Amino acid sequence: MNDRDLDDALIALADSTRRAILHRLSQGEARVTDVAAPFAISLNSVSKHIRMLERAGLVQRRRAGRDHFLALDPRPLEEAAAWIEAQRGEWTVRLDALDDLLRSRNQKKRRRRR
Amino acid sequence: MNDRDLDDALIALADSTRRAILHRLSQGEARVTDVAAPFAISLNSVSKHIRMLERAGLVQRRRAGRDHFLALDPRPLEEAAAWIEAQRGEWTVRLDALDDLLRSRNQKKRRRRR
Repeated sequence: MNDRDLDDALIALADSTRRAILHRLSQGEARVTDVAAPFAISLNSVSKHIRMLERAGLVQRRRAGRDHFLALDPRPLEEAAAWIEAQRGEWTVRLDALDDLLRSRNQKKRRRRR
Repeated sequence: MNDRDLDDALIALADSTRRAILHRLSQGEARVTDVAAPFAISLNSVSKHIRMLERAGLVQRRRAGRDHFLALDPRPLEEAAAWIEAQRGEWTVRLDALDDLLRSRNQKKRRRRR
């Protein structure tokens, strides 16, 4: 995933309506109208959110006659998770190193006091 | 973390310069000028990115005389990771259920063929 794709995925995730749509689709494929039904906003507004999710690659659309079915594509979620995990890993390593340093200093201090 | 805070964290993460700043800070606390140095953009532009990271709670600023030190605050990263993980978990459960269904159908087919 390049930087631009990661930007698009994170921006697409940065909205509670879009997160609710993805949550709905995590339960299974659904018609556009069924996805839109629980929201207090217009079908047109929901459609705009869905198109943003499609552009970010988080949602795939399947046409069956008149019906449009939406499905979650978790690959951009995986990529976003991988980036966050990588950060988390480095941060934890740094904290552990700091922890070790402080512990060894304290041990030296204690030895000097004896 | 409420929805608005999660929105802010994800929008703050949705930019490669801001991700690079966080990556730099994952190595340890740093002066604003040192954080800005590797970037080909103006100090003013980097400062805007830093302020956005501060507003999202991803960066903390410590003043020591004239020096401004920046440190990564990983808490919003943890929250964003938790949301993505929750989605991933549900999606995996759904995929596993689908997998079981297909497997049991195939087994029935095979039994019929015998």
